[in-house]
Amino acid sequence: MDKEIFRRHGHELVDWIADYFENVESFPVMSRVKPGEIRSRIPSVPPESPEAMDRIFEDFKTVILPGITHWQHPNWHAYFPANNSPESVLGELLTAGLGVQGMVWQTSPAAAELEDAVLEWMRRLLGLPEGLAGVIQDTASTATLCALLSARERATDFQSNERGLKKPLIVYASEEAHSSVEKGVKIAGFGRENLRLIPSGPDFAMLPGQLEEAILRDKAAGLEPCCAVATLGTTSSGAVDPLPEIGPIARRHGLWLHVDAAYAGSAALLPEKRWILDGAEHIDSLVFNPHKWLLTNFDCSLYFVKDPGSLVRTFEIHPEYLKTGADPYVKNYRDWGIQLGRRFRALKLWFVVRSYGAEGLRAFVREHIRLAQLFKGWVAADPRFEVMAPAHFGLVCFRLNDGRGEAELAALNKALMDRLNATGRAYFTHTVLHGKFTLRMVIGQRTTRERHVRAAWALIQETAAGLEVKPSA
Amino acid sequence: MDKEIFRRHGHELVDWIADYFENVESFPVMSRVKPGEIRSRIPSVPPESPEAMDRIFEDFKTVILPGITHWQHPNWHAYFPANNSPESVLGELLTAGLGVQGMVWQTSPAAAELEDAVLEWMRRLLGLPEGLAGVIQDTASTATLCALLSARERATDFQSNERGLKKPLIVYASEEAHSSVEKGVKIAGFGRENLRLIPSGPDFAMLPGQLEEAILRDKAAGLEPCCAVATLGTTSSGAVDPLPEIGPIARRHGLWLHVDAAYAGSAALLPEKRWILDGAEHIDSLVFNPHKWLLTNFDCSLYFVKDPGSLVRTFEIHPEYLKTGADPYVKNYRDWGIQLGRRFRALKLWFVVRSYGAEGLRAFVREHIRLAQLFKGWVAADPRFEVMAPAHFGLVCFRLNDGRGEAELAALNKALMDRLNATGRAYFTHTVLHGKFTLRMVIGQRTTRERHVRAAWALIQETAAGLEVKPSA
Repeated sequence: MDKEIFRRHGHELVDWIADYFENVESFPVMSRVKPGEIRSRIPSVPPESPEAMDRIFEDFKTVILPGITHWQHPNWHAYFPANNSPESVLGELLTAGLGVQGMVWQTSPAAAELEDAVLEWMRRLLGLPEGLAGVIQDTASTATLCALLSARERATDFQSNERGLKKPLIVYASEEAHSSVEKGVKIAGFGRENLRLIPSGPDFAMLPGQLEEAILRDKAAGLEPCCAVATLGTTSSGAVDPLPEIGPIARRHGLWLHVDAAYAGSAALLPEKRWILDGAEHIDSLVFNPHKWLLTNFDCSLYFVKDPGSLVRTFEIHPEYLKTGADPYVKNYRDWGIQLGRRFRALKLWFVVRSYGAEGLRAFVREHIRLAQLFKGWVAADPRFEVMAPAHFGLVCFRLNDGRGEAELAALNKALMDRLNATGRAYFTHTVLHGKFTLRMVIGQRTTRERHVRAAWALIQETAAGLEVKPSA
Repeated sequence: MDKEIFRRHGHELVDWIADYFENVESFPVMSRVKPGEIRSRIPSVPPESPEAMDRIFEDFKTVILPGITHWQHPNWHAYFPANNSPESVLGELLTAGLGVQGMVWQTSPAAAELEDAVLEWMRRLLGLPEGLAGVIQDTASTATLCALLSARERATDFQSNERGLKKPLIVYASEEAHSSVEKGVKIAGFGRENLRLIPSGPDFAMLPGQLEEAILRDKAAGLEPCCAVATLGTTSSGAVDPLPEIGPIARRHGLWLHVDAAYAGSAALLPEKRWILDGAEHIDSLVFNPHKWLLTNFDCSLYFVKDPGSLVRTFEIHPEYLKTGADPYVKNYRDWGIQLGRRFRALKLWFVVRSYGAEGLRAFVREHIRLAQLFKGWVAADPRFEVMAPAHFGLVCFRLNDGRGEAELAALNKALMDRLNATGRAYFTHTVLHGKFTLRMVIGQRTTRERHVRAAWALIQETAAGLEVKPSA
């Protein structure tokens, strides 16, 4: 593709994205295609001869687009957000154009040093303790795995790397912790039977007393407690495990304390939400995803560690072909995680933070929390509905409840969710909280305004009206 | 940023990238900044107020660009290539704009089904056995870790996930295998002492007889052989471990056979190089990186498995909040690897394969191999130099050798490399082959033409002339 053709198509795609940002509301949020429908429209063999970009882009619009679920739709209320922003897209575009692979400092000093600088910016914005060192990972799953591996190595004096894990080490997390903890426990060779899921209270936050009891029970049984994972903003309900109590317990028993703030870390930008990090002086590591709620397109997950030495010692490798003269003087991020190869992700985050400024980022997050409180109030005021959990952030858990039994309520609320999603006007997902089927209303897309939240609530009320909900008891 | 401003900056960045593709030769290949130089030019605190994109982009050009090492320079001869292409950049741009996170089918059916379709295209293009199922990972490090974990679980009837790894399982790889094997062995809890590095022959390929002896030795000692990793195109020299002999050995002893074709997989597109996959009927898994030599910008690593069931069983998690009605009917790629979140990477690969067509891709790879042969001939004809390894692909290993001792030769060749890199006109890295310090000439960037290879050779000759090399004995 020659230069002028690239320019032409590049401009065309930029314009398409500009229009898409504007008209994304016109698409059904959740794709309506059936399993196999897209696949059946793609030839089973690759083309032998080159095809023109006009034709490929046409196929993108006619074949691929109907199979897209629109994460950037302002009525995206499912899972957590993975919002982006024009600024972040521009950063990602430059990253792709440069085609830098930042595995070691020498392969692009600016990639390493901008990452170092921007992570320090983020540490300050979140009010994390001084001295925490940061690295960009792809996802929180990877970052949490890094934490578990560092904990494993520290607990075995770095001998598990050498000899394999020879004894059971115990990991603790709330029953409401993300599935990536269980996945990491399996990958790192702890074994799922050595993961203790600590009960949560009525607010779905981990009960610290139960944590300490579990640790003591394991110690009494001759087992070795190794790592505790606290979650700030659980996936199901946005619950906040109490660091001020969990921290001292972890410290007292010599556990690595990892904090999963993947979603709610963004809220720590706000003075009024900074309390979620009370107790942060106790943490060994923390993960926070700007690719969820902070306008930075996926993937961009920040991992902070108190003792980077133990992280590097867990992952370092020294093949001859990766040695450089700069090694004694620089950070080689290849030793800060699972992967060797690294995309230049710091660039888009730098674009976002500078474009919005700290005040812009705070205003953005604060507005979503305001809208969630508004929505929560509407739910609480409608006798057919109930609010299912505290709503600290941009997530409100709710359901219809007319007093029928739990199984019937689950079916009723699942029917509500399926009907809502079938309209294409909004997209919701569910969870189960202490046995109760619950809908999740997540507010976090860049273009979500009060009118979208009002429209979503009107849609929910109207859809519920078609479901023969009895007046509440 | 409003629509018109995004359009303006988007066009500006596209134009900048178009120019960059054209004038990348004007930059020193390896950045010349000193450690800390870039960092010192970035404020230590983030801006409180928004900054204009004009200013940010200006800083990109003045602060960041000098710290970039130019992977897309036609005289990039270091490591392996990580080439990109205008087509791939366009695909990545759309991926960023859509902001899709394809963790489960429902969160974008097109992302899942296009991935499935394009991986089948790639399987056909490489001539891999029918029935192999594919998934896109970020890097070969991750894919190899997936293979090691699947091997671990299969060998323990999926009980390591549940109970931890209770007994030593042994992994085999060539002494020339990539460092990601050692890293994966540590992460997955095997322990480095349970990794056997099998000697390589004069061509740096694994000696299959030595592999079988090691397996028998371990069995006799009561240990359990679990996994063998064969490399097609080793990092140091591009050596090809012989699958036709390794395959039956792995099968005979019940080992999981993983193939690392991260770099040289691209060569399997060519009928004349298809021999590297002879014996592929024995493999359990294979990794191949289009982000190295196949015009697809980083990251895009393809992982193929014979039995996807064992992969899924290794990684599957079923939290309530991820369940969807489509689950029984679709591939949920979240269970095909380490991470939960997934970028829509198939789009750029689809753009590349369609834009170039199979014939275009083959012509591209074939030309680099021709250039490498040309270079090898020049080296062989100059009595000051020697070729250090067979050159099957786009990599030629060479060094100055005037008969002095090995330590002195290492210093001499390191001096040659440092002087070459300091010119900024080309970038080379080194390795050590059977104890001998060796330079690597890698030809694989999109815009590398014969004139660039000729210029690199002239530069090498001229630089060597300044090094007081004695006439060869």
